[in-house]
Amino acid sequence: MNRSLVIGGGLVGSLIAIHLARRGHEVDIFERHPDFRIEADTKRPALNLTLCERGLRALGEVGLRERVEALAAPAHGRSIHGEDGFTAYQPYGAHGEAIHSIARSELNETLINLAEGLPGIAFHFGQKCTHLDLATPSARFEDVRTGAITEIKPDRIFGADGAYSTVRLHLQKLERFNYSQQYLSQGYKSLKIPARADGMPVLESGSLHVWPRGQRMLIGFPNRNASVSLSLLLPFDGAHSFASLTTADELRSFFHAWFPDVAELIPGLAEQFFARPPNSLLTVRCAPWSYEDKVLLVGDAAHAILPSYGQGANAGFDDCSVFVQCMDEYGDDWRSVFRAFEARRRPSMDYMADLCVEHFVELCELVADPNFLKRKELERRLNDLYPDLYQSLYTMVTFTTTPYIEAMRIEHRQRKFMDRLIADEGYDLDVESPRIKELLLRLSHEEIA
Amino acid sequence: MNRSLVIGGGLVGSLIAIHLARRGHEVDIFERHPDFRIEADTKRPALNLTLCERGLRALGEVGLRERVEALAAPAHGRSIHGEDGFTAYQPYGAHGEAIHSIARSELNETLINLAEGLPGIAFHFGQKCTHLDLATPSARFEDVRTGAITEIKPDRIFGADGAYSTVRLHLQKLERFNYSQQYLSQGYKSLKIPARADGMPVLESGSLHVWPRGQRMLIGFPNRNASVSLSLLLPFDGAHSFASLTTADELRSFFHAWFPDVAELIPGLAEQFFARPPNSLLTVRCAPWSYEDKVLLVGDAAHAILPSYGQGANAGFDDCSVFVQCMDEYGDDWRSVFRAFEARRRPSMDYMADLCVEHFVELCELVADPNFLKRKELERRLNDLYPDLYQSLYTMVTFTTTPYIEAMRIEHRQRKFMDRLIADEGYDLDVESPRIKELLLRLSHEEIA
Repeated sequence: MNRSLVIGGGLVGSLIAIHLARRGHEVDIFERHPDFRIEADTKRPALNLTLCERGLRALGEVGLRERVEALAAPAHGRSIHGEDGFTAYQPYGAHGEAIHSIARSELNETLINLAEGLPGIAFHFGQKCTHLDLATPSARFEDVRTGAITEIKPDRIFGADGAYSTVRLHLQKLERFNYSQQYLSQGYKSLKIPARADGMPVLESGSLHVWPRGQRMLIGFPNRNASVSLSLLLPFDGAHSFASLTTADELRSFFHAWFPDVAELIPGLAEQFFARPPNSLLTVRCAPWSYEDKVLLVGDAAHAILPSYGQGANAGFDDCSVFVQCMDEYGDDWRSVFRAFEARRRPSMDYMADLCVEHFVELCELVADPNFLKRKELERRLNDLYPDLYQSLYTMVTFTTTPYIEAMRIEHRQRKFMDRLIADEGYDLDVESPRIKELLLRLSHEEIA
Repeated sequence: MNRSLVIGGGLVGSLIAIHLARRGHEVDIFERHPDFRIEADTKRPALNLTLCERGLRALGEVGLRERVEALAAPAHGRSIHGEDGFTAYQPYGAHGEAIHSIARSELNETLINLAEGLPGIAFHFGQKCTHLDLATPSARFEDVRTGAITEIKPDRIFGADGAYSTVRLHLQKLERFNYSQQYLSQGYKSLKIPARADGMPVLESGSLHVWPRGQRMLIGFPNRNASVSLSLLLPFDGAHSFASLTTADELRSFFHAWFPDVAELIPGLAEQFFARPPNSLLTVRCAPWSYEDKVLLVGDAAHAILPSYGQGANAGFDDCSVFVQCMDEYGDDWRSVFRAFEARRRPSMDYMADLCVEHFVELCELVADPNFLKRKELERRLNDLYPDLYQSLYTMVTFTTTPYIEAMRIEHRQRKFMDRLIADEGYDLDVESPRIKELLLRLSHEEIA
């Protein structure tokens, strides 16, 4: 008998529980927050995320792909709102590629509803983990309302309890556990633009809206119901920061100065803004992800990354796909399952953690660099003409299921190639010339790097 | 009234307590381990450390410099024991420079004895911190023998509880606390070579003995009583590792293969070796080091570094020197004291953390690189001739009290200078030529870099 305890009933906890239950495990899921389907959870930010190919594939493995796609709003490109008031549209690809925007809570609800209907799964909400014994293993939970204590001794524990994982905190105290948590100096708040009275969207639908302003940024995620979920990213401290905006007047002036075209679209801006403190963004790296054959970290608990590439949830779902492969290969040899899982996932996530920190700087600063934009445009033209020979890193990450680490290797070669190409021929080279195709063919065969 | 709680009665906890008490604070020191002066502490490794100028200066500030120097054994250079059986001697400097080797326990005892005699200081041994409330602040301790609980509500708390700090673990749970712990894949065990029956040293006294063997290394620290304290550094896992050495026979074969000239000098080698598990080595970086005006991390709790430069204890003592300066400057404005302390110390320690990881690789691998040795020799010749114009990084770190970060800036310039000099003139250049002196003069005036 396999009795699994999943700590954390979020996206990854729910999905991995579904996989375990389908393989005949008895699964208990303990979630610290109350059931948000019954009472709104005012403590967690009401944010949107974007699903891309690797996330959707993983949902497809439990039959949820179409259902989730129907709930989500597709975005086929970015609408960049410049400081000059003009908007530039950048399609994600020339072949109809889209990412899918959905409220985290809606996606989580879909997963929990599916999980709850499966035999062998029991959800326990509002249960705070107060004690964890890795060696037994056992865990103790306190009901956040009644204070009642539950003790559980499963065969193994899955730590799916997010970036601030309690399970990981226990692993951290073991000898030789490498660990790092690094916060961004910016945080974010969620705001909402409702649909117009006639049900039409206020901002053009079908794209992700971005107002890049150096260290500050506003991002608008489309929703199916024609509303837009905004994430406002600001420094925590200093001028024009979360710390400096303390009154409705200051907030209004700030918006009119930085995001004048949006200020009037947000009803009750001050009320929305001051309702909650800003949320942090952090990168978590650690190793190892498991303890013997007893405990495994998955999702953000193992590898929280910045949202630069929109990969957090997708990477967590990818974990589940790979975990299932490892279970299929190693059966009840759980130590090997856990080790194989980490061997396959950690190099990709270590790389992704770095990439997201790098790309965050890009988003903040390079967007305004003309050479950066020219290069992106050149890459886009190459990809349009030769979709099989040249895919940008963003395309590989977002629209393929190529492991991140493999995408990195390809990108590494491509970057050197592009550096040389631009140095030799400038940005306006004739992409249609046979010579370029010949070069790309050689590049894709790893003959040049 | 200033009531200070110091958590951790090690080297830094004792020294900072002395400074606080001398300024009229009431100081309680809670130490997790029993009083090792009364009962030997078998759980902590019996290791030696080396004091250099900055550590000795800090001890001098509480009148302990001479007393400690008298207890320590000076080492004026390194005796490198090669695989070929030959020994090479490298003096630390041309001007009689020495580092001072002393057992950690002996140094700690000296500090505790001084502290205990001061009015206002109370030591509490065998007290494990079970609860910490940063905001009050308050702390709860459990007597490790009787289980009795003590609760204390001081004005402020000093976390001097080492690399595995409990105080830091509480800070880590706060929002936006950046933290990293990274373990080396090698660990160490302490061994001992006693003096000969006639009281003479078995190994030549006056130097630090090093047997570099790639990923493995043996270091011999001289003691005043003519014994030698050894640190044996091995990988935790793999071939010829702590994991692979499980019997006395295996251990004997290993020593005869890797350190044949030492094998017979260690009485009861197997008994010594198998008495305790190997100790880990880790690097800890974090920020911020304080919480409001209530909690401050000092020493290894704030910045554990690898022993590559022999700086761990010296850096902790340096903390105390800088902390005293900050108290003198900011008086009872503790928030400013804490912030100034971190502003002055953290850049140096962040740099030192990186340097020690880098230098560890150097020690393991580069020592065998002939160009590396030629360069070191060239540096030594320059320093011999122009001690005021050229000091190697090791010299600045070890024999001056120049802040590490300043030493880094000088080294950065020097490195570029040396790269160019060697590229232009090779390793055998005439250091006595007026041109070289001219170049060094310009370098020291920051005219070239």
